[in-house]
Amino acid sequence: MHEFDVSSTASDHRLAGLRKLFPVQRFVNDKASRSAFESDGLTAFRAKPLAVVIPETADEVIAAVRWCFDNDVPFVARGSGTSLSGGSLPVADGIVIALNRMNRILKLDPESRTAVVEPGVVNLKVSQAAAPHGLYFSPDPSSQSVCTIGGNVAFNSGGAHCLKYGMTSNHVLGIKAVTATGEVVTIGSTSTESVGPDYTGLFCGNEGLFGIAIEITLRLLPKPEVFHTVLVGYDSLRAAGDAVSAVIDSGLLPGAMEIMDALSIEAAEAAVKCDYPRGAAAVLIVELEGPREKIAFEREQLSRVIAATKPVVEMVAKDDEERMRIWKGRKSVFSAVGRLSPDFLVQDGVVPRKRLGEALVAIEKLSRDSGIRIANVFHAGDGNLHPLILFDGNVDGMLHRAEAVAAELSRLCIAMGGSITGEHGVGMEKRDFLPHMFDENTVDMFDRLRRAFDPKMIANPGKMFPGTEAPALAMTGLHPLEKAGVIQRE
Amino acid sequence: MHEFDVSSTASDHRLAGLRKLFPVQRFVNDKASRSAFESDGLTAFRAKPLAVVIPETADEVIAAVRWCFDNDVPFVARGSGTSLSGGSLPVADGIVIALNRMNRILKLDPESRTAVVEPGVVNLKVSQAAAPHGLYFSPDPSSQSVCTIGGNVAFNSGGAHCLKYGMTSNHVLGIKAVTATGEVVTIGSTSTESVGPDYTGLFCGNEGLFGIAIEITLRLLPKPEVFHTVLVGYDSLRAAGDAVSAVIDSGLLPGAMEIMDALSIEAAEAAVKCDYPRGAAAVLIVELEGPREKIAFEREQLSRVIAATKPVVEMVAKDDEERMRIWKGRKSVFSAVGRLSPDFLVQDGVVPRKRLGEALVAIEKLSRDSGIRIANVFHAGDGNLHPLILFDGNVDGMLHRAEAVAAELSRLCIAMGGSITGEHGVGMEKRDFLPHMFDENTVDMFDRLRRAFDPKMIANPGKMFPGTEAPALAMTGLHPLEKAGVIQRE
Repeated sequence: MHEFDVSSTASDHRLAGLRKLFPVQRFVNDKASRSAFESDGLTAFRAKPLAVVIPETADEVIAAVRWCFDNDVPFVARGSGTSLSGGSLPVADGIVIALNRMNRILKLDPESRTAVVEPGVVNLKVSQAAAPHGLYFSPDPSSQSVCTIGGNVAFNSGGAHCLKYGMTSNHVLGIKAVTATGEVVTIGSTSTESVGPDYTGLFCGNEGLFGIAIEITLRLLPKPEVFHTVLVGYDSLRAAGDAVSAVIDSGLLPGAMEIMDALSIEAAEAAVKCDYPRGAAAVLIVELEGPREKIAFEREQLSRVIAATKPVVEMVAKDDEERMRIWKGRKSVFSAVGRLSPDFLVQDGVVPRKRLGEALVAIEKLSRDSGIRIANVFHAGDGNLHPLILFDGNVDGMLHRAEAVAAELSRLCIAMGGSITGEHGVGMEKRDFLPHMFDENTVDMFDRLRRAFDPKMIANPGKMFPGTEAPALAMTGLHPLEKAGVIQRE
Repeated sequence: MHEFDVSSTASDHRLAGLRKLFPVQRFVNDKASRSAFESDGLTAFRAKPLAVVIPETADEVIAAVRWCFDNDVPFVARGSGTSLSGGSLPVADGIVIALNRMNRILKLDPESRTAVVEPGVVNLKVSQAAAPHGLYFSPDPSSQSVCTIGGNVAFNSGGAHCLKYGMTSNHVLGIKAVTATGEVVTIGSTSTESVGPDYTGLFCGNEGLFGIAIEITLRLLPKPEVFHTVLVGYDSLRAAGDAVSAVIDSGLLPGAMEIMDALSIEAAEAAVKCDYPRGAAAVLIVELEGPREKIAFEREQLSRVIAATKPVVEMVAKDDEERMRIWKGRKSVFSAVGRLSPDFLVQDGVVPRKRLGEALVAIEKLSRDSGIRIANVFHAGDGNLHPLILFDGNVDGMLHRAEAVAAELSRLCIAMGGSITGEHGVGMEKRDFLPHMFDENTVDMFDRLRRAFDPKMIANPGKMFPGTEAPALAMTGLHPLEKAGVIQRE
């Protein structure tokens, strides 16, 4: 555990002005309440904020940010805190702006297929609201039943179906945001043909460093008429990886292509009884979706391609119930892995799709060499790996060893011409890897752009960029603040 | 004509250092040669640069930019000078960096479906080089046989087929660029899943204000197996506009949907004998493209949709020759209009697709009220209008009147919830309209981002942003430099 806190006794006076902006029940600074916000999906990191404010209106968000700007107090915007990269970890000398009550769908226009939402709206609620009109919101992170659109925007979230439809940024048409200077800006357009640079694309994936989106215009898609979902078992992980390339090379563009290895299958089976085929070293899930006639045509093509990949078993979902069971297994993996191991880290790296098989062999070797079990489950069509690194945090030094394996995986992805993150973001977890992916000039340019939004560096400082501008922990070895005794690892 | 020049006699000494960087034949500053660069596709504006340098390598481009940075000399990067918004108009006290000799395709990888090119490569050359592998580069501006990829990137160019496939930014995976500070940065990734904000998307559409792309990684697409191209005639422009919505509402996504009105048809017919149906008030071109079986299915669906829109005539291209004839008519319009009028301005505005019919009625009224003929030809699927405003520049005051009509069209697009530019960019032409589309905070944010790349404001200054930081002309009325007698209108 990496934990840090600063005494908040002296902070009460400092926060007096902020307190006045919120009713007492929406300004929280007692220790117990602050503890509820001290971590996110990357539980190895903890930090208690000075206080948490819970705005209910855009004006309250703006007022909070302006107060932070005027008083040089760092802030972290937070939705449901599901970030897996520590992106919503509080800053120990700053405040958290919790956006869960900013959860209104302001407008839903079936004709233009758009929805305007507040940042605290839960991802799945958008699709539920759009369903009566035959529409849905495409990005589908595994956490979609709890994660918020504001977080999806900040981390440019993906999901199983981003192979065909792209990431969150491909579905955000416009953003009204308060920048870290307290200014309100409005960017984007409902047309693909916009003026000048893609400012909306720039804002998506800012990881909370530019400011806070307060109104987001989303693109909705028509729900596919039919799905065709196939589960294919292989006798090796590599064979499953190669099958992915075969499908893509055939010209098919499935809605999703997911791979799970034996360990993931075992976990899912134990947790949710998804009836995956026994004895396969890996399964590949392929889902086609679209108009009925088109899919009728494509499923024949897919069937021929799959037959040529020498599968050991193939299951076709006969109805929606069977389809849901297949997806239930896949979507349960992260939680199911808890049955196999007391603790785990979820890695999130990308390799070029053509090098998937090679990457998987390297990961197997890394697991053997380190003696640390790694369960593999990933968005195969994108080359987006999610190795789950299993360890027991109660055993001395195991967290460090697991983190070293995670770091090794990041290096592997970079070396193969891929990326340190596909969809979880850089956050706390990967910040020290940014300079491994980008040269110094380029990181400097990123930093200048960030300062164009946040000259005082008060918006989620310490994330994404390496450096020591705010308390944060290096991925390996002792952090300067640890050395100084300010923070302790448990 | 809006023309300006500054004496270059005094500039020789100033440019001595730059001259040393280039062999004599690639450093041009005699008046005749400079004149060859004095204008671009928006011929109403002219400015002579101090000198033109013609680099042949990335290192020479970088050296030129560094020299400009060190010596506070403005520069304008230029490909083929086809910009229709005056985006590549020289700055009278600056230099032009001509990139036409930076025209190598550095790498073409059919397996990953990517090409790495220099900025001076002509758009069509990429598709020609990719053709033996069954691939092509999707963005297809009308000028694609001459315009360069660097210009496409700078202006995020579109074309008839961006309805289905998106703009240039959707097909640029990575960029190596020299920023206006002389630093080389490398952004982007071959994966849709990238790290942090979409920096590549930010660079596309920068209109030359951030720096110069020196290596661009492009995404190539597999060539469609078959095309199905239909030309449909209607008895009114509005009926054609409404047909576009009917097609989209049916769930079809054609590769292209283009509309031409009677005046455009007349011009095209006179110029290239494209055999369009006589007597139609407007024609709609719809092109489906994709795998054979899929298109066989979709053409039936399209046929039913079109039948319900009450066309007066329908022609289906029986073979590739007929298809090319249909497209020849459409693509000839800009040049063909020269037969109808000595001069014309091409406007480039966007309205929400659902309001196309309404916009066309308003344009007709504007034409009637102003007594200025307007030919309409446009990317209908995107709501991207290209009204051609016909006038005789030799008649006193006519340029001013035509510009006033163009300005009125921009206002119309904004009022209808659209955009002042779809694909031509803001450039010189629309710069004074930027504050009509975006509020002050937002334009300020744009400017801060621009300064993150170009703190000295030497990269294509005077474009995109309103203001007087460089010699430029307001769209209507006298420019301050005109009032001061520094520049004259012809």
